[in-house]
Amino acid sequence: MTVRVAVAGASGYAGGEVLRLLLGHPEVEIGALTGNSNAGQSLGALQPHLGPLAERVLEPTEARRLAGHDVVFLALPHGQSAEVARELGPEVLVVDCGADFRLRQAEDWEAFYGSPHAGTWPYGLPELPGARDALRGSKRVAVPGCYPTAVSLALFPAYAAGLVEPEAVIVAASGTSGAGKAAKPHLLGSEVMGSMSPYGVGGGHRHTPEMAQNLSAVAGERVSVSFTPTLVPMPRGILATCSARTRPGVDAEAARAAYEKALRDEPFVRLLPEGQWPATGAVYGANTALLQLAHDPAAGRLIVVAAIDNLTKGTAGGAVQSMNVALGLPEELGLPTTGVAP
Amino acid sequence: MTVRVAVAGASGYAGGEVLRLLLGHPEVEIGALTGNSNAGQSLGALQPHLGPLAERVLEPTEARRLAGHDVVFLALPHGQSAEVARELGPEVLVVDCGADFRLRQAEDWEAFYGSPHAGTWPYGLPELPGARDALRGSKRVAVPGCYPTAVSLALFPAYAAGLVEPEAVIVAASGTSGAGKAAKPHLLGSEVMGSMSPYGVGGGHRHTPEMAQNLSAVAGERVSVSFTPTLVPMPRGILATCSARTRPGVDAEAARAAYEKALRDEPFVRLLPEGQWPATGAVYGANTALLQLAHDPAAGRLIVVAAIDNLTKGTAGGAVQSMNVALGLPEELGLPTTGVAP
Amino acid sequence: MTVRVAVAGASGYAGGEVLRLLLGHPEVEIGALTGNSNAGQSLGALQPHLGPLAERVLEPTEARRLAGHDVVFLALPHGQSAEVARELGPEVLVVDCGADFRLRQAEDWEAFYGSPHAGTWPYGLPELPGARDALRGSKRVAVPGCYPTAVSLALFPAYAAGLVEPEAVIVAASGTSGAGKAAKPHLLGSEVMGSMSPYGVGGGHRHTPEMAQNLSAVAGERVSVSFTPTLVPMPRGILATCSARTRPGVDAEAARAAYEKALRDEPFVRLLPEGQWPATGAVYGANTALLQLAHDPAAGRLIVVAAIDNLTKGTAGGAVQSMNVALGLPEELGLPTTGVAP
Amino acid sequence: MTVRVAVAGASGYAGGEVLRLLLGHPEVEIGALTGNSNAGQSLGALQPHLGPLAERVLEPTEARRLAGHDVVFLALPHGQSAEVARELGPEVLVVDCGADFRLRQAEDWEAFYGSPHAGTWPYGLPELPGARDALRGSKRVAVPGCYPTAVSLALFPAYAAGLVEPEAVIVAASGTSGAGKAAKPHLLGSEVMGSMSPYGVGGGHRHTPEMAQNLSAVAGERVSVSFTPTLVPMPRGILATCSARTRPGVDAEAARAAYEKALRDEPFVRLLPEGQWPATGAVYGANTALLQLAHDPAAGRLIVVAAIDNLTKGTAGGAVQSMNVALGLPEELGLPTTGVAP
Repeated sequence: MTVRVAVAGASGYAGGEVLRLLLGHPEVEIGALTGNSNAGQSLGALQPHLGPLAERVLEPTEARRLAGHDVVFLALPHGQSAEVARELGPEVLVVDCGADFRLRQAEDWEAFYGSPHAGTWPYGLPELPGARDALRGSKRVAVPGCYPTAVSLALFPAYAAGLVEPEAVIVAASGTSGAGKAAKPHLLGSEVMGSMSPYGVGGGHRHTPEMAQNLSAVAGERVSVSFTPTLVPMPRGILATCSARTRPGVDAEAARAAYEKALRDEPFVRLLPEGQWPATGAVYGANTALLQLAHDPAAGRLIVVAAIDNLTKGTAGGAVQSMNVALGLPEELGLPTTGVAP
Repeated sequence: MTVRVAVAGASGYAGGEVLRLLLGHPEVEIGALTGNSNAGQSLGALQPHLGPLAERVLEPTEARRLAGHDVVFLALPHGQSAEVARELGPEVLVVDCGADFRLRQAEDWEAFYGSPHAGTWPYGLPELPGARDALRGSKRVAVPGCYPTAVSLALFPAYAAGLVEPEAVIVAASGTSGAGKAAKPHLLGSEVMGSMSPYGVGGGHRHTPEMAQNLSAVAGERVSVSFTPTLVPMPRGILATCSARTRPGVDAEAARAAYEKALRDEPFVRLLPEGQWPATGAVYGANTALLQLAHDPAAGRLIVVAAIDNLTKGTAGGAVQSMNVALGLPEELGLPTTGVAP
Repeated sequence: MTVRVAVAGASGYAGGEVLRLLLGHPEVEIGALTGNSNAGQSLGALQPHLGPLAERVLEPTEARRLAGHDVVFLALPHGQSAEVARELGPEVLVVDCGADFRLRQAEDWEAFYGSPHAGTWPYGLPELPGARDALRGSKRVAVPGCYPTAVSLALFPAYAAGLVEPEAVIVAASGTSGAGKAAKPHLLGSEVMGSMSPYGVGGGHRHTPEMAQNLSAVAGERVSVSFTPTLVPMPRGILATCSARTRPGVDAEAARAAYEKALRDEPFVRLLPEGQWPATGAVYGANTALLQLAHDPAAGRLIVVAAIDNLTKGTAGGAVQSMNVALGLPEELGLPTTGVAP
Repeated sequence: MTVRVAVAGASGYAGGEVLRLLLGHPEVEIGALTGNSNAGQSLGALQPHLGPLAERVLEPTEARRLAGHDVVFLALPHGQSAEVARELGPEVLVVDCGADFRLRQAEDWEAFYGSPHAGTWPYGLPELPGARDALRGSKRVAVPGCYPTAVSLALFPAYAAGLVEPEAVIVAASGTSGAGKAAKPHLLGSEVMGSMSPYGVGGGHRHTPEMAQNLSAVAGERVSVSFTPTLVPMPRGILATCSARTRPGVDAEAARAAYEKALRDEPFVRLLPEGQWPATGAVYGANTALLQLAHDPAAGRLIVVAAIDNLTKGTAGGAVQSMNVALGLPEELGLPTTGVAP
């Protein structure tokens, strides 16, 4: 089976990573590539790392150019996916790397994005309970945000097993590619190298309701999330440090057992051997999430740390993985599980 | 008044930073410089950034070489300060950058350092309630750990004003110089650039009881601390993200007022204007701590972020500041409040 | 055809990169993995990015453990390959990533390495004139040094076409992984981040005679090489800036034509479109060399800049590419031509 | 003597570094601070590292706001200095950090900058033969470019002593702050971290004629310069690798003696002890240039490597040093000679 794929937003970081992965996918043929401000330019000038596509020229992002493919990946700014998707027929698999169709509650969407809610699509994090089944055969996929991917993988086993209280405290660090390719002064190399800073503190980051939605669904009760994202001097990678008060009787052994059980068959999530902690460098360019946990009896908390590559498992890898599931292909097809290190 | 100063451990990062600051201190004359494995080598080979001291040669770390100075800075591995200090007379001001004399509870020391407790010296964080007075005229100073400096400055106003519950959750990131100059494989540039990882998770880091001690003293009750340190790809800097549940009735305005009041007269701690968040790059090489806070009503928490340079305010700057207080010199003498940025 | 492969020195950077590539090679089955100081440890602890091999345990580097494979990659310290190779039969393809068999002149070897010369093997840079033919069917391969790979690819077309005088001036920058995984103080993250420095200046670097050998062979006359390597704050990548005086009548157009002709059929070397300059980031993890050239009429020089990943095309990728050629497999098999960027 | 100083362009990197140094200058009082697009904003928001000036507000860059100061530093885009300077009286010391008044030949200016030549001011590199005398008492100073500072210091002793042929080959690497604070996509942290690239190759960089001018003046004959600049992943620092063919009879000893003699009394240039090579990290934030040289007899070349901080000795430090000379103050006043390392 050869799947013909188009990518809208091919000049950005998410679109570029989708293409990097598709180039290594044995069942994919890469079709139309579109961009808006960069239409007419060669991909070689915009994404010089994608050697085999260097001669390809970007077309404008128009539905008629995306139509006629089996799969269309949307890597567009938030708010643009709904219109494009509407014009693509129901027979096209549309995988949206944007936020538009992630949230179930219209009021969450409106509070954090300030525009009318476009709807909800099956959620592209197959590891969450029930998610894989919902993705199978679906023609629409909402790829999770990068932080919610890391955090949900880190905490869902704890909430599924009832290990912790429904108040999670999360501090996560992201490499700069998470902020995209738009040239903003605070993202200049001179500003970020040798420096680290928080942003969106106090509940304002748009990924907050998405995390709460995922964890609440697993817990079967409303989980509150205190989320602080920070920007660190590296191009890729998310390290999420997640913790919550443990419920009575929970100890390290019980927690470990619950995680091993929940993750046993997951090809892309690895609970590290005891004593080894995740480093983002180990998943550079890989679709893998590395986890480790500790119980702090003095503080009465379970701490789980997850490392992912924000562009791979956190965006484009999750998107391709979901495409595989939706199309009935082997879930691991074309997805690297080795990082590029050191 | 000219103060004659010796530095033990002059070849390491802490000792080097002490010297960098002392070179800019108008009342200091730099005397003996000692090191152990590097005795006999020139400082120019070991600390090439200290141009004016390039010709100076390291002596072995022996009390008789340190004696005869007004002030001795100890930048030695944990456990070595007590013996050196004993041999120096009570008339010498000994400023210990190590951990030996920071903890008040012998059982804390023994649990975390595994050796007999050497005692407790006045604590070199003048901003803490009562600390400045205890330092004045003292001949012994225990310089705080780098993480406890950042965390204590971030949270003491909240505990002093009773804003939050006595359970703090702290995730802090440090540049690699915090791990010292010893060549260890996981600290190689190849390993740390482009990667981030946690360590000492679950309550195991030695700075944990020091933070709890400081915050408990201010709160007047036992404060539990969940502390997760992480290593980020930058040479210097600590960004500490600290949070705790707010007590009933506390809001952003009340919190801000309490912080403004607590920090009003501090020359080295700056609560940033609303909306501006601290970046470690802004305090590169400076003795300044930058703070900002947010109240998250949905999660019911107060979040305070502090940025310091781990080697300056977090170690050597705090040491020189404490020396100034102990000697009755102006507290700000010789201490930069401008960072080297970008 | 399935090729059974062993890797000696699997815990280092070169060995790890060989394994990363072999994991993606469709005709390879990974057999014995050996190391010396790390024998008995799991690969998961030593190379956490190689997820699929995490459970594999390192054996000691002994010929009897390497025997019985079709191919053995040696990623050992210089001087250790000859003995291991001797014990492996002539039917085993031995690909040596070390320097032992690169140089043709015994006196060059002895002057730069200070030990007796072990011999010369077919040289694993298939792009050099004649090299590909020499590799076909060979059972021994000497993989080039990382700098000589970049420099030889950058300049061989100029010398093949007689464009420039036989005096090359080369300044090359390498990421820190080029210096290996041994913990040395000057390679600590704290030392290399935010800093850049030269080493081996004045002709002392061991890769100098290898470059001169390659360029002289192509030029048909002795080419002198002034080579200055520098260390830059990035984990991977070599950027080689190479120049030489142009011969009379040579201009930019003639130079470009000569390069296009020389590189026309090379799958792993790409002369960029005019106006686009190579960045090492674009070949992160890829087996690609990117080239660009300029003629400076005022200075009378041709300047060629090459970017490679020192661990991929500069070491392990070149090794796998040479294995493919030696075994008669398609040369591009299992070798990425897309970089991991940003 | 207290000197009242204004800074035009206070929101950029050069202007910020001028202010950082002026804050530590004992004879300076900081007056008007101007910017164009940022007028009306507080310096605390734009330059958060300049704590003591956080409350100061930027005025528009207008001559009437700059008038009435003893010294005006101009850190403006190229081409804007002439007009501002004209409106300031001849009694005001104007120190121009831009390029406008550096070049002596109008045709050089026009070829590289494409606008009419504004004139030539005394050149702010006091270490060059004759330059210090020309600066004394001058009311106009043209601060050198950052690359020409490093390269001229590296090579002027060789040309002054007739050690080398008049064809210099220079490859220099710069931290990203050299490219300024304007947000351009290729300067994003995501693009520059982990990557290195050249630019302006083949004689096109605007600093080329300035280097040739300086070296030619010292040599007493026209020196051709092949200059290749590269961008490296660090915020600050220039490492310039400079070489030229040695004249007959020149060896390492003769070269060293010539450099020692030429630099003997210079407070800000240090020829390192034999065997020690400059690292940019050692001059982070310092006004020091570190040099080392090697003679390569096989290649027949003298190689000199210089490390400076592009913003300090390369721009703002050179500017303040020149101000000191012009005003008759001690040349070293307010200028750090210790770097911030690691």
